[in-house]
Amino acid sequence: MVKNTQIIFNKVPDAMPVVGEHIKLVTEDFDPNTVALSENDVLLRNLFMSVDPYMRGKMREAEAKSYSPAFTLGKVLDAGGVSEVIKSKNPEYKEGDIVQGLIGWENYTVVSEGKNLRKIDGARQSSIPLSYHLGVLGMPGMTAYAGLFKIGEPKQGETIFISAASGAVGQVVGQIAKIKGLRVVGAAGDDSKVKFLLDELKFDAAFNYKKMDLDEAFNKYCPKGIDVYFENVGGKMLDTVLKHCNDFARIPVCGMISQYNRTSNPEPIYNTHMILSKRIRVQGFIVAEIASEFRAQFAQEVPAWLKEGKLIYKEDVMDGIDNAPEAFLRILRGENFGKQVVKIADL
Amino acid sequence: MVKNTQIIFNKVPDAMPVVGEHIKLVTEDFDPNTVALSENDVLLRNLFMSVDPYMRGKMREAEAKSYSPAFTLGKVLDAGGVSEVIKSKNPEYKEGDIVQGLIGWENYTVVSEGKNLRKIDGARQSSIPLSYHLGVLGMPGMTAYAGLFKIGEPKQGETIFISAASGAVGQVVGQIAKIKGLRVVGAAGDDSKVKFLLDELKFDAAFNYKKMDLDEAFNKYCPKGIDVYFENVGGKMLDTVLKHCNDFARIPVCGMISQYNRTSNPEPIYNTHMILSKRIRVQGFIVAEIASEFRAQFAQEVPAWLKEGKLIYKEDVMDGIDNAPEAFLRILRGENFGKQVVKIADL
Repeated sequence: MVKNTQIIFNKVPDAMPVVGEHIKLVTEDFDPNTVALSENDVLLRNLFMSVDPYMRGKMREAEAKSYSPAFTLGKVLDAGGVSEVIKSKNPEYKEGDIVQGLIGWENYTVVSEGKNLRKIDGARQSSIPLSYHLGVLGMPGMTAYAGLFKIGEPKQGETIFISAASGAVGQVVGQIAKIKGLRVVGAAGDDSKVKFLLDELKFDAAFNYKKMDLDEAFNKYCPKGIDVYFENVGGKMLDTVLKHCNDFARIPVCGMISQYNRTSNPEPIYNTHMILSKRIRVQGFIVAEIASEFRAQFAQEVPAWLKEGKLIYKEDVMDGIDNAPEAFLRILRGENFGKQVVKIADL
Repeated sequence: MVKNTQIIFNKVPDAMPVVGEHIKLVTEDFDPNTVALSENDVLLRNLFMSVDPYMRGKMREAEAKSYSPAFTLGKVLDAGGVSEVIKSKNPEYKEGDIVQGLIGWENYTVVSEGKNLRKIDGARQSSIPLSYHLGVLGMPGMTAYAGLFKIGEPKQGETIFISAASGAVGQVVGQIAKIKGLRVVGAAGDDSKVKFLLDELKFDAAFNYKKMDLDEAFNKYCPKGIDVYFENVGGKMLDTVLKHCNDFARIPVCGMISQYNRTSNPEPIYNTHMILSKRIRVQGFIVAEIASEFRAQFAQEVPAWLKEGKLIYKEDVMDGIDNAPEAFLRILRGENFGKQVVKIADL
């Protein structure tokens, strides 16, 4: 008999979610040996789970339409995860397999019919950390890659500006843009993150957006204007970037994290007229909808860049499923430094 | 000896330009016979000139960058025009030719080296009104055509919404969209314009945006949401449309006339986060930069549609060069009904 802690979606938050109110922990005894599996079910022992900004958008009323279904009130939250198969009635998965897929915020998950799982071949022997499958090699890495190439259309010699630049997606965007010969400028909300962007990721420039006037920062660090803005934050940042865009700038809209807790009170944008005067393209995207056309190229380039050291990846790992809510809140507060993951158990 | 009236750019306006202050009329005696032409110059007697919203953007300080150079203070304003060649030292143009090109807001223009001119072949015999070359067959028509196809990507069965729908561009967009099998909904600021959209242009729905709550209007007239928004006005209209857009909506940004007199005080937009959640593409364009790829197709389709009666074009003609400033202000105030042109002289 072991314990299974689950994180439940308890109430729709209006602003920043509160643990105990909107998100609740429930711990119960759990016996993996007596779990009844239906045909094709798989029982997982979860090792790592991902917390990501998009999850905030799923904490809403079920009626409110969006690209991704709302979390179900009263049920365990779900997330991307890396897990070990400990019991299987599915011929495609056997005990001991390491898999990646959609799991619950919990220690143990039964996945009906093995849906949305993918085996990680050679996981036990690989030098690549398992958690990377939730980051640079997973959804955030593909978000960076596909969004940058499909909408950003980066060209050598251009200037790219990246907000939330040390985050799960931003750090990959910046390093790929460096590889492709762009001038790479990033913003983060903390001096140590700025130092990381400059010293480790070799960005051409980086600044702490909390400490600088944005107009001054762009005048200083993007003296030739901005050709690509990889948008992760929205609000005033977007508004100011519009002023500093060059003609024909592209703005892949990947996230607007500054707005996620302001559903009823979004920040105004004043410079949309510049979309016209500068012929800017602003386009939202969801990685799942555009990833397929980039999978082969991604699989060829990204692991190779990692091996060659051209691409590094910073993670912010919190230990224990109990800390999953806090890990999630850290992202919303901008306190994570690198890709936030939760380590649930050792392999 | 005749009179030549010229309209001069006298002062940069902050808001709505005022005749006598920002725009000034000057009338002088003019003798076409004694005008000294240099090699390749052409002297034009102007017949029609176009006034267009983009001209407001050119009434700015020369230092302020934009897609199109500022008008020069103290000099005559320029515009698209249709003219008769009355004197020529350019072998490509002879006396009596009817040409189209960039002229001054004036009765007579000397065009150095015949720059930016194009002969209208068969103009004297054609059933097509000369002024159409400033409208449906000219820049506004091409703006509608290229913007709709390049950025709007209209698909049969989709809903398109068009603001300023009875204007120079909007009426063409709507009729082309009808031909292509879309549900076409338009807004205008006057009941007679709405009636025109419904009765003459056969829009599926149209409404007076000054008389209806915009949310109610979209709920009523775009019950399946908006797939393409052909943006001519900006401001609150854009903000509300974002709420009613479907996933993957396209917004070609052709104009934002509601903002042109609010340079220092642009209207805020609150719903930019929907660009992300609905994966919307918002893209500004300038016809001159995208027209080339559509010219052949345009020349094949648009004149044919006119002849077949599939496309009609409403013009609002003011008489006399003295009225050119008022014609221009009518556009900015939304008072024109159809494409505003100024008739300067009979052929």
